[in-house]
Amino acid sequence: MPLGEVVRDKSDSRYCGVETEFNDDMPQLLAFNINGGFDFVVSPLMDPSYRPSLMVAGNNGAGVPPFAGSDLVLSPSQWSSHVVGKISSWIDLDSEDEILRKDSEIALKEEIAWACHLSLQACLLPTPKGASCANYARCVNQILQNLTNMQLWLRIPLEKSDNDAMNGNSDHLSGGQVDSWETWNSFRLLCEHHSQLSIALDVLSSLPSSNSIGRWFGESVRAAIIHTSSFLTNARGYPCLSKRHQKLLSVFFNHSIQAVVSGKPEHSLPTGSSELAVNHIDGLQRHPLRPYLDYVAYLYQRMDPLPEQERFELGYRDFLQSPLQPLMDNLEAQTYETFEKDSAKYIQYQRAVSKALMDRVPDEEASMITTVLMVVGAGRGPLVRASLQAAEETGRKLRVYAVEKNPNAVVTLHSLVKLEGWENMVTIVSCDMRCWDAPEKADILVSELLGSFGDNELSPECLDGAQRFLKPDGISIPSSYTSFIQPVTTSKLYNDVKSHKDLVHFETAYVVKLHRVARLAPSQPVFTFTHPEYSITRSNQRYMKLQFEMPNDTGSALVHGFAGYFDATLYKDVHLGIEPSTATPNMFSWFPIFFPLRTPVQVPPGSPLEFHIWRCCGSTKVWYEWCVTSPSSSPIHNSNGRSYWVGL
Amino acid sequence: MPLGEVVRDKSDSRYCGVETEFNDDMPQLLAFNINGGFDFVVSPLMDPSYRPSLMVAGNNGAGVPPFAGSDLVLSPSQWSSHVVGKISSWIDLDSEDEILRKDSEIALKEEIAWACHLSLQACLLPTPKGASCANYARCVNQILQNLTNMQLWLRIPLEKSDNDAMNGNSDHLSGGQVDSWETWNSFRLLCEHHSQLSIALDVLSSLPSSNSIGRWFGESVRAAIIHTSSFLTNARGYPCLSKRHQKLLSVFFNHSIQAVVSGKPEHSLPTGSSELAVNHIDGLQRHPLRPYLDYVAYLYQRMDPLPEQERFELGYRDFLQSPLQPLMDNLEAQTYETFEKDSAKYIQYQRAVSKALMDRVPDEEASMITTVLMVVGAGRGPLVRASLQAAEETGRKLRVYAVEKNPNAVVTLHSLVKLEGWENMVTIVSCDMRCWDAPEKADILVSELLGSFGDNELSPECLDGAQRFLKPDGISIPSSYTSFIQPVTTSKLYNDVKSHKDLVHFETAYVVKLHRVARLAPSQPVFTFTHPEYSITRSNQRYMKLQFEMPNDTGSALVHGFAGYFDATLYKDVHLGIEPSTATPNMFSWFPIFFPLRTPVQVPPGSPLEFHIWRCCGSTKVWYEWCVTSPSSSPIHNSNGRSYWVGL
Repeated sequence: MPLGEVVRDKSDSRYCGVETEFNDDMPQLLAFNINGGFDFVVSPLMDPSYRPSLMVAGNNGAGVPPFAGSDLVLSPSQWSSHVVGKISSWIDLDSEDEILRKDSEIALKEEIAWACHLSLQACLLPTPKGASCANYARCVNQILQNLTNMQLWLRIPLEKSDNDAMNGNSDHLSGGQVDSWETWNSFRLLCEHHSQLSIALDVLSSLPSSNSIGRWFGESVRAAIIHTSSFLTNARGYPCLSKRHQKLLSVFFNHSIQAVVSGKPEHSLPTGSSELAVNHIDGLQRHPLRPYLDYVAYLYQRMDPLPEQERFELGYRDFLQSPLQPLMDNLEAQTYETFEKDSAKYIQYQRAVSKALMDRVPDEEASMITTVLMVVGAGRGPLVRASLQAAEETGRKLRVYAVEKNPNAVVTLHSLVKLEGWENMVTIVSCDMRCWDAPEKADILVSELLGSFGDNELSPECLDGAQRFLKPDGISIPSSYTSFIQPVTTSKLYNDVKSHKDLVHFETAYVVKLHRVARLAPSQPVFTFTHPEYSITRSNQRYMKLQFEMPNDTGSALVHGFAGYFDATLYKDVHLGIEPSTATPNMFSWFPIFFPLRTPVQVPPGSPLEFHIWRCCGSTKVWYEWCVTSPSSSPIHNSNGRSYWVGL
Repeated sequence: MPLGEVVRDKSDSRYCGVETEFNDDMPQLLAFNINGGFDFVVSPLMDPSYRPSLMVAGNNGAGVPPFAGSDLVLSPSQWSSHVVGKISSWIDLDSEDEILRKDSEIALKEEIAWACHLSLQACLLPTPKGASCANYARCVNQILQNLTNMQLWLRIPLEKSDNDAMNGNSDHLSGGQVDSWETWNSFRLLCEHHSQLSIALDVLSSLPSSNSIGRWFGESVRAAIIHTSSFLTNARGYPCLSKRHQKLLSVFFNHSIQAVVSGKPEHSLPTGSSELAVNHIDGLQRHPLRPYLDYVAYLYQRMDPLPEQERFELGYRDFLQSPLQPLMDNLEAQTYETFEKDSAKYIQYQRAVSKALMDRVPDEEASMITTVLMVVGAGRGPLVRASLQAAEETGRKLRVYAVEKNPNAVVTLHSLVKLEGWENMVTIVSCDMRCWDAPEKADILVSELLGSFGDNELSPECLDGAQRFLKPDGISIPSSYTSFIQPVTTSKLYNDVKSHKDLVHFETAYVVKLHRVARLAPSQPVFTFTHPEYSITRSNQRYMKLQFEMPNDTGSALVHGFAGYFDATLYKDVHLGIEPSTATPNMFSWFPIFFPLRTPVQVPPGSPLEFHIWRCCGSTKVWYEWCVTSPSSSPIHNSNGRSYWVGL
C-alpha cells in the first residue's frame, strides 16, 4: 500500500518496494510481501545457479531456462504492477573469462526477453563489476534498440568505491578509486542517453559529499535501494536513518524516486510490543522488514505538503516551452490573465514607483506637481494600476500614458479605465513605443518587457526606442537588468531536445521549470543593460566569456546545457528576479531559460568550464550564439541565428 | 609559372605564391611578381592603417573603405587566378580592448565581402593572437555560413609557440606553452569542421618533432608559407633548406599543398653571376625573392615521379567506397578484371600452393599421388591457374575442383578451361561452397575471400562451410588471417561522411585509399581466424579492447576514426597483407578500411585511447559495432548492425 496520502505530486515515490531472493513460488513470495505492506517486489526471475554453458549439450530444445514459474502463476496485472525483474547478479559481461562473458550475454538476453514476455514495467540490471563496462553497455544497448516499454534500471552504488576492493580487475585508473557516477556516465554515453535506461541507486551506510550526490538529481534515477545496514537504531530499538540520509530520502521523494528496502533485518525489536501483539491477533506473520518500511513511510508522511504555487507548477516541471515573442506576436488573453495574477511582481513595481515619485517630488510640492508617467507595454493595465496605487499611497499627482501595441489588449484597457473611473488620469495610446510621437516628455517610464533571460524579449531595443520621450533626468523602471547563467546536468531535458532529431531544437533556448536538474556551479552574471542609455557608442550587442569552477568534491560531471535567469533593478534598492540565490519570493511569471548543448560536455574534476555567449543584433532580429571552449571546444551554436531568434 | 612539369598528380602544389605588402597599385604589384616567376600573390586588400572606429562619423555613406584599387584595376580572371586576399593582420577579435574587437569584426567582414566581390579563390586569415579564439571563430563561422566558393585559410605557425612571448593575454593555460595545433583544433571545432575553412602553415627556421608535424597531414592544409629566414646558405651563397625542411616540403608537395615565399631577401648573392647577367640583358629587374623560388622549384623538380601504381590510384585517394558484398551480391566482370591483374597477389598464392604440395607429397611419390585441391570462390579462375602453375613448378599431380557460386563467372571459367586445355585436371562446380556436396575430400582448400579488414567479406563463415570437405589433415590456404587497426586524423574523410547528414554513414565502414591522413599510433592486431577450425566451441563472434598510446612528442590529437588492415598467412612463411609495416609490395587489390567516429575524440598528450570493436553474428548477417571509452566514451556505433552489415 502507498507510503501515505500527503498532498503532493501523485508520483511513483508513494510506492515502496522490497528486494527479495530467488523463489520458485512467485505467488507465495508476492503475497507475503504485499501483505507485509510493500507495493512491489524486486525479485530474480531465474535460478541463480543456472549457467547456459553448463546446460547439457545436444538435448535439442529440451533445455528450458529455470525461470521462477511459468507466466501463468501470476495474473498479467500482478506481474506488471507488482514485480520488478532482478537480473541475475552473477552476470559479468566484462570479465576476462570468455565463457563467463558469453554465459552472461545469453542469460541477460533470456531474462530480459522473459521480463518483456511478462510485461514487467522494469528490470534491475546488476552493478557493473569494474570500471570498464563497454561490453555490458554494448549488450544492453542492443537490447534497448528493440525494447518497447520496459525500463532498465542500472544498479549503481551511491558512493565513491575503492576499486581495489572490487575483485581486483585490471582497469588502468590513476587513483585506484572509481567514482560510480563515472561508471554510469560511461555506460549511458555508450547507450546514447537511451530514455529507457535509468538508475537504481544503492544507498549504503556512508554517503558521499553533497556535491557528489547532487549530480544524480540531473539524472534519470528511478529507485533508491535502501539497505537495512544503512539504518541506525533509535532509543526504543527501532531502525531510523541519519539526518543526512533523511534529507536525501526527502529529495528522492521530491524527485519521484521510489524506495526499495533491501537486506536482512538488523534490528531485533523489543518483544511484546503492542504492534507485534496486534499482528499476532491477525494471525499473520509480520514481515521482518516492516519496521524499515514503517520508518520510510514515516519520513514520507512527515514531508511538508507542496505549497500552492508549486502544485500549480507541477505540470510544468521539466517541460520545454518556446520563449514568448511578445514583440513579434501579440499575447493572448489567457497569457495576460496568468501574468496579472502575479501579485508579488506588482507589489515590487508599486514600491519602485512610490520611491521614484517621492524622489521626484518633495512632500511640500506634492499637491502642485503632476508627474508624467508612461507605461510602455501596458497590456491590459496591471502596471497602470500599480502606478496609480503608488501615487495614491504617496499622495503624488500623476498623469499616466498607457502605450500598448496589441490592439486586442487596448480594448480591455479602455474598459478597465472606464470601469475604474481613471479617465482623467490615464491616456491610452494604441501604438508601438518605438515609433510613438509622444505629446510631452515623461518623468517616469515604466515597463515590464523582461524575459527569463532578462533582455531576451528585446526590452533593450524597445526601451531604446521609448527613451526619446523620457526627460533628460527621467527615470526608467526598471533602471537595469542583468542575465545570469550556470551549467547544469539534466538528462531529461537533453533527451527531450534530442527527441526532435534535428539541429534547430539543439540551438534553441527554452523556458522551463527546472526540476530534475543538477546545478553544477553558482550562477554568474552575463549581460547588463541600463536605462536610459545615452552613450553615443551604445550597442545592444554583447559578448561574455565565463569560467565556471565546480566544487572540488563534486567529481567529474556532464554538462547538458546552461540554465539562465535574470535580476532587474526596478529602482534603487527595489529589485525583481529569478536568479536562485536572490529570487523574489512567490513570483511565478518567469521560469528559467535553458540553453542546450548539442553534445554534452564532460568536465573532469578540477577542470574549469569555459562558456561563451553572444547577443547578436541584425536589422530584423536579435539572437544568441553560444559555445564551450574548455575542457574541449563545442561547435558554435545558432550561428547567424539560423535556428532561434527573436523578431524585431 | 608552375614549379615544374614532373609527372605527378596535377595538383595545386605546382604553383608557388609570394606574400606581399599592401600596395595601392595592384596591377604593378601583380605584374612585378608574375614576371618574377611567381604564380600568385598573397596581398593585403585594405590599407593597414584603416580602423572603422577612426572614420569620420556622420559623413553618411561618403566613407569608402580604403581598398587597393577598384575591382576594375584587374580583370576578373586576374583577380581569381593570381590573388589571394590577405586579411589585415592587426585584426584581433579576442582582444580585451572592446573597440579593437569591434573594429576587427567590421574590417574582417568588409574585407571578406570585398574578396567575394572580386571572386578570389581564397583569403588568408591572420593567426589567432592568443590561445583563446572563440570570438574570432564565431565571426569567421558566421561568415562561412554564407560563403559560396571562397576558401578561408587560417594562418597557423608550425611550432609550439611560447604563450608568454605573445602579448601576454590572460589565458589560463597550465604550462605557458600553446600548441598551435590546439589553437587550430579549437577554432575548427567551433566552426564544425567547415569544409571551406583550411590552413596555411607558417614554416619557420625551427621545426617541431616529426610526430607533432605529422598531425597536420590529416588536416586540410592548403598552403605552406616559407619564410626567407628559415633558409640556410649553401657553399655558393645561395639559399637552401635543411634536410628536415626539404623532407617536409616534399610531403607538402605530395599533399597538394602550395608553397608561398614570404619575407625579405636574406641572402646577398654574389654579384656578376651568370644568371644575374642574363636577367640584366632582358632589361627586367630580377625579383629579389627569385633565388628562394628557384630553390623551391628545384626541390619540386627533384622529386621522384609517381610509380605507375600510385598514378593509377590517384583518383581513389581519400575517396570513400562501400565495401564489396561478394557473398550477397555477384561481382561484375570489371571487378574480376581489376583483381586478376594483381600479379603480386597470385605470385604469393602460387608460392604457398607449391610449398603445401611439396609438404604433402614427397619428391619420390610425386608421380604416384594426385593431390585434390579445391578452389572455393574460383571466380574467373586466377587461383586455378596459380595452383596449376604451382603443380607444374613442383612436378606434383593435381586434381582441381573450381567451386564458384556466381553463375556469370562460371561461364568464363568454362571457356578458360577449354582454352587452356585443362579439361582433364579441372572440374567446375557451380555452387555455393557452404552447401556443396563434394564427391571426395580435399587435401588443399584454396580461397581468396578476404576483405580489407580480413574477415569482413565473411571468409570465416564461407570456410567454416567448406571445411566439411577438407581431409582431417588437409590444408587451408590461407591458414589464418588477422585484422589490424590504428587511430587516424582525417578531416577530409570525416567531412565526407558528415556531408550525408545522417547516422547511417557515420556507422558504416568504408574502403578507402588513405592519403590525407595522420596515423597517430602503430596499428594493433584485432581479430584472428584460423582454418580449418575444429574446436567445438567455435564461434565467429569476436570482441577486442585495444589501448593506443600516442608518442609523447605528438601533443594532443583529434581522432576522426580508425584505419583497418589485414595480414593473412597463406601457408607457413608465405603471407599476404596490407598492414603498413608488413604490406606485400606492389599489391593493389585492397585499400584500407575506415571506421569513422560520429564525434571526433580529442586525446590529450599522454592519455591512452581505448577502443572496442565487436564482430557480431546473426542468422542473416554479420556486422561490427565499435566505440571509444577513453579519454571519454562515445556512443556504441552500429548497434545491432542497424546501419551497416554484411549479408550471409
